[in-house]
Amino acid sequence: MKTQTILFASRPQGVPTAEQFRFETRDVPEPTAGQVLLKTLFVSVDPYMRGRMSAAKSYVAPFEVGQPIAGGVVAEVVASQSEQLPVGSVVVGNLPWQEYNVADAKTVNPVPADKAPASYFLGLLGMPGLTAYFGLLDICQPKAGETVVVSGAAGAVGLIVGQLAKIQGCRVVGTAGSDEKVAHLKALGFDEAINYKTTPDIAQALAEAAPNGVDCYFDNVGGAITDAVYDLLNKHARIALCGQISTYNATEAPVGPRPEGKLLKTSTKLQGFIVSDYLSRWPEGVQQLTQWYTEGKLKSEETVTEGFDQIPTAFLGLFKGENTGKAVVKVA
Amino acid sequence: MKTQTILFASRPQGVPTAEQFRFETRDVPEPTAGQVLLKTLFVSVDPYMRGRMSAAKSYVAPFEVGQPIAGGVVAEVVASQSEQLPVGSVVVGNLPWQEYNVADAKTVNPVPADKAPASYFLGLLGMPGLTAYFGLLDICQPKAGETVVVSGAAGAVGLIVGQLAKIQGCRVVGTAGSDEKVAHLKALGFDEAINYKTTPDIAQALAEAAPNGVDCYFDNVGGAITDAVYDLLNKHARIALCGQISTYNATEAPVGPRPEGKLLKTSTKLQGFIVSDYLSRWPEGVQQLTQWYTEGKLKSEETVTEGFDQIPTAFLGLFKGENTGKAVVKVA
Repeated sequence: MKTQTILFASRPQGVPTAEQFRFETRDVPEPTAGQVLLKTLFVSVDPYMRGRMSAAKSYVAPFEVGQPIAGGVVAEVVASQSEQLPVGSVVVGNLPWQEYNVADAKTVNPVPADKAPASYFLGLLGMPGLTAYFGLLDICQPKAGETVVVSGAAGAVGLIVGQLAKIQGCRVVGTAGSDEKVAHLKALGFDEAINYKTTPDIAQALAEAAPNGVDCYFDNVGGAITDAVYDLLNKHARIALCGQISTYNATEAPVGPRPEGKLLKTSTKLQGFIVSDYLSRWPEGVQQLTQWYTEGKLKSEETVTEGFDQIPTAFLGLFKGENTGKAVVKVA
Repeated sequence: MKTQTILFASRPQGVPTAEQFRFETRDVPEPTAGQVLLKTLFVSVDPYMRGRMSAAKSYVAPFEVGQPIAGGVVAEVVASQSEQLPVGSVVVGNLPWQEYNVADAKTVNPVPADKAPASYFLGLLGMPGLTAYFGLLDICQPKAGETVVVSGAAGAVGLIVGQLAKIQGCRVVGTAGSDEKVAHLKALGFDEAINYKTTPDIAQALAEAAPNGVDCYFDNVGGAITDAVYDLLNKHARIALCGQISTYNATEAPVGPRPEGKLLKTSTKLQGFIVSDYLSRWPEGVQQLTQWYTEGKLKSEETVTEGFDQIPTAFLGLFKGENTGKAVVKVA
């Protein structure tokens, strides 16, 4: 049996291109005791993977040149040497970008595919959902009536953050990169949404959207938007530092106004985090998100690209702002 | 009865000078019911007061031009219309820079002058001590064996932070601005101390002094020292953001390398604070600090200037790095 695989061909300088990827056909081994043969249904493409393309030390190990790229995958068990995972089970795991994978059963997690579409376990009910859940509810701890700003609000995590903040009774302001996304955020219940690419003055636009100042900031973007939010912080503000996509492709260390004075004056807490910091509370998060989803309080938003060969294109699209909500690729 | 007073004459541009101060002689009224007449013993001069000299909104209201400057004062009750504060009591309060003040008894706090020298209630057992106590123990929560870096380590707060971190069993690294201060820090038990003014490369010096990385950073200074510490943070590091004296006299908004990416990668918590955030826990802090002082585990360090007329000079000296430990002025 054969599978296509996508290898990491070379490290990018600045914005990644198609040159970082190489397709190859490989043999798929038979599963041995404790293993399963997995047919990939959906592949997740995520901004954090840009970090793994650099050789620099980060919170996850760099990809190795010449090896398959691996990330979030939802797959169906099509052959099994494990009692835990019978044929037909649907699982989520960190797996190579391949049409088929053989994996130890204990390295993947079964998901309740009867409760939600399979791709949701890469989004609303997966890593992005949990990132939003812990970043907003544990770090920011928003109170009803407070103002929450989310940058990258139309992204996989941002869309969920905004919905969670509405559930908490907050005023929610989002930033996004197109009028279409802005309209989408408003339709989803955001109180205000700003197109940072077309607004003449992001600082003024944010000040108008948050007339009572900013109590919580969930930052996916960094850069000029974040600089502007720092000037609006209320006393005892909380910042969940989740991503800095505006700087990921920078080839020189980014420079900007020093934030410390502003954080000091307002007794602000800023907490960097990665969702794996909350591994021990994962079941709590999945359960609560699933409940809100079942109750109709949370909507999943996806940008689905079709075809295994389109995975690199979908990944590169993240840095062009092409996706609204979670970007996934439907493989089978 | 007459008293000298020091008025705030004009707002500084950049580094304050003697032009910001004007001496005047005023009448002292008789204390009325509930009031006390206070004879100033010691006046505190503190870096945070620079912030109050600017018109900009900050965590404390700006000084008003033409009005007396007010700050931490230890005083003796010399006439009393209050049963709570008999003549001879020693109190601490936020009072105008005057030789004599009349104040409502309930706006000042009596201190146990039998337990420590009066000036200590402006330092080790006062605001700087509590700032060190809550910033280090509540925000940083250092564990035995961890590495704690303190900038401005020879300052009023820094010296106490370092001693508290040693009590917690940590490796303590301090930065200071003279060889004399560095020697003093080492004598006080700091494991390493760096003269940031003479070291050819602060980043390398810090890396060598903290070979296991930095778990806790108590920042009084900001700027280049802080930039260098950000590069040494361990996973789940904690930063207590207490002061930014390197930027207080800046006439333009300071610019530097963006820290967010580094805080994100390491899941670092950075918390701005002012000691008044902990007002409700003040008695706990004073009690613990007094106990450690009584047990000989904490030493007080002061730079004492003599004479009411020397208060402006002592204040201006803060920005020239002239003081080691708490800077106070002995008035009587």
